[in-house]
Parts: sequence; structure tokens; C-alpha cells
Amino acid sequence: MELYHQLFCPHSRFVRLVLAEYDLEPELIEEAVWRRRPEFLALNPACTVPVLVDESGIAVPGATVISEYIDERYGEAAGEKRLQPPTVAERVEVRRLNMWFNVKFFAEVSEHLVREKIWKRYMRAEEGGGPPDSSAIRAARANVSQHLRYIGWLAKSRNWLAGDRFSYADLSAAAHLSSCDYLGDVPWQDDEHAKNWYARVKSRPSFRPLLSETIPGLAPAQNYADLDF
Amino acid sequence: MELYHQLFCPHSRFVRLVLAEYDLEPELIEEAVWRRRPEFLALNPACTVPVLVDESGIAVPGATVISEYIDERYGEAAGEKRLQPPTVAERVEVRRLNMWFNVKFFAEVSEHLVREKIWKRYMRAEEGGGPPDSSAIRAARANVSQHLRYIGWLAKSRNWLAGDRFSYADLSAAAHLSSCDYLGDVPWQDDEHAKNWYARVKSRPSFRPLLSETIPGLAPAQNYADLDF
Repeated sequence: MELYHQLFCPHSRFVRLVLAEYDLEPELIEEAVWRRRPEFLALNPACTVPVLVDESGIAVPGATVISEYIDERYGEAAGEKRLQPPTVAERVEVRRLNMWFNVKFFAEVSEHLVREKIWKRYMRAEEGGGPPDSSAIRAARANVSQHLRYIGWLAKSRNWLAGDRFSYADLSAAAHLSSCDYLGDVPWQDDEHAKNWYARVKSRPSFRPLLSETIPGLAPAQNYADLDF
Repeated sequence: MELYHQLFCPHSRFVRLVLAEYDLEPELIEEAVWRRRPEFLALNPACTVPVLVDESGIAVPGATVISEYIDERYGEAAGEKRLQPPTVAERVEVRRLNMWFNVKFFAEVSEHLVREKIWKRYMRAEEGGGPPDSSAIRAARANVSQHLRYIGWLAKSRNWLAGDRFSYADLSAAAHLSSCDYLGDVPWQDDEHAKNWYARVKSRPSFRPLLSETIPGLAPAQNYADLDF
């Protein structure tokens, strides 16, 4: 398997976590999507990462589509460790939260922070590069507080975010938060429940490779890789 | 079943088409999401339509989550008429295009046109109402041409958008286009293949209720409800 991804892309991180939880080890290929490489456009006309290419050559694009594909192929064999729960009502809740983080949180928080602070460093001017837009960063920081409260509320009332079981919902939330956390933009002190839940997810072996990645010239926030932050 | 929806909301239209294809007839409840009604927020904290409430009271929010739910509950029994195909590769393609229209086309085209031209009429100033933003409309119109070309290319090389079978991909594409088409913002003359494909979808019985809906004070474009446009 090959996974086209980008460092600190929250959707790529989510898929890497999912694959690691199922002990799948794809070859990782970094793709600078803003270059719009013709060979990559042929794999995914939307020109976004992640794209998973399976052993038979099927290209599976996007976090949501990949997570359904992985569940169909590997979910049942995982038994109790399956990341999509067995009942209809539980699956609705996992998918609802997955969309919450992969679409809503991304649009309101993580896309702005990662694009303004990280990707723009690598883009040429004509690809959208340049200095960070401080109003986009300000808006994202205001939104992250609201989201953190919601995560705290879920974590307080349930064992994991979507219910009793560890699921895709925990991985998508943690993936998006981890990119923001590297940048020091998650006010963990504001919500003890959210912080404790994140510490539990972060200490899983699947998280380790992500926590060791860094950006040249941009050090991680103080407690980013600290498991007892 | 109850379906909370909004007239001309492309995601609501998609779900209505899916339900109609499966001969399911939910009670339709219009929800002005910008009012942020507390009872509706309890059903869907994201405060978006559509939300399907099933017979057992489970609230299923959002086009993507609803389409997976409907497939799990009614797909197999539909046999040849199932809207999600049976093989892994085909399902990837249907889901890819479903995300294409429900996320990408929405963000680039249909959200702007419907919000600026329709919803703003019903919103108070503090809810985001006001005169339409002409630069948002201009951008959406430029984007719709690109999308129409892509749809035409798919329709030319395949029987239906995702392959041999009529699927969710056709319904999501047609749902989003239909809202734009009411407003006269789809340049059908630019692509014969896209036009012929849309004429086939539009003439299905599931489409009939949508084509008869109108907005007071805003007449539909000339050929909107015309099956041989």
C-alpha cells in the first residue's frame, strides 16, 4: 500500500493513525498538492491528500472515503479493536463526529492554522504562498476554544468521544488537534476533560511517529510530544 | 421517519432523492437553521440540515452520514436498484464523487449561489441576511463551468457518473445542480454530455416533487422544470 500524504495535514494524520491502529504500514509518499503534479491529478482529480493506493492499484482519495474503505476491508477481522462500532446507532454517532472534525473543525480551525503557519512556507507566491494571514489565524484560535469545550463535554459524559468504544471519532479529533497543538494553538488549560482524553489518545503507539515529526525552523510547542503534559 | 430540511438546500435535495428512489416517504419539516432553535440544536449540534429522524428516534445528521445509514438499512433489499454498488472499487468511486459534490461542489458553487440568492432573503441582518454578495456569485459562476466540464467528461465515458450503475453519485450531482439551475446559473449549452445526463436524471419520478417547488418572488429559470430542455 502507498499513502500520498502531507506532513501536518490533519486528514493525512487521521488516516495514518487508522492504518497504524490496524497494524497496516503503507509506504509514505509526500505530495506537495499545490504543485498540481499531473500524475497525482490522475490519481485524485480533486488534488488533495491523503490518497491511499491499495495493492491492486485502486486509488482511494480523502479521509472519509478511505475510512469507509478500511472498515470494509479490515474492520470485521479486527473484532473488538474495530474502529467503527457494530450497531447502527453507534455508527451514526461515529460518522457524525468524523464529519464534525474532518469537515467542520477543518474548515473552522485546522485548515487555517496549518495553511497559514506551515504550508505557506513551502508554496511559491503563485501557488498561494506568502506571509501568514493574521486574521485567519485569529478566527481559527477563537473557534478552537468552542470546539475544545464540545470535546470536553463529550469526554466527560462518555468513555471515548463517540461512546463506550475507541473509534474513528477519537482519531479524527486527535489528528486535527495534534496539528494545531504542534503550533501551540490549543488552550488545553481551558478544559481538563478534553486534555485528559487527548493524553489518553496521544499515548497510544499509533501516535508515536506523528509526535516525532518536526518542521525545520519551527519548533513544536513546549508540551507537544510530552505524554503527561 | 421525519426529515428536517430546507427548500433548495442541495444536501436536503440529495437526501430527498435518495429516499424517494427507495420509496421511503418521510414527513418533511422545514428548518430555518439560522434561527438556531434549541430543540433542533439538540438533534444536531452542528445546526445543519438535512437531519433524518428514524422510527426509533435516532437522529442522523448530514448528507454523507444519512446516505451510509440508508444504504446499511435499505441497500441490500433494493437489489439491482441499490444506489451504492456491490464491489469495493465501485464503492470507492461512488463515495469519491459523493464527497466531490457534497463537499467540493458545495463549497465552490452551490453554497454561494443558494445562500446569496435564496437564504439571505429569509435571514434577519443579525443572522447573516442582506443583499447578495456579487463577488461570491461571480466566483461560483466561474467554478460551475469547470465542474460542468468534468461532469460532461464523466457522462461521456460512462453510462452513469460513477460507472455502469445509477448511484448516489448521480443523485448528489443532480441535487446540487438543480438548486443552481433554478437560479439560471448552469450554462448547459456549454456541455452536451452533461446536459443529456442531467435530462435523464431529471426525468426520474424521484425528481418530480423538487421541480414543482418555487420561491415566492423568484421565478425559476426558463427550462428548470422542462424535461426536454
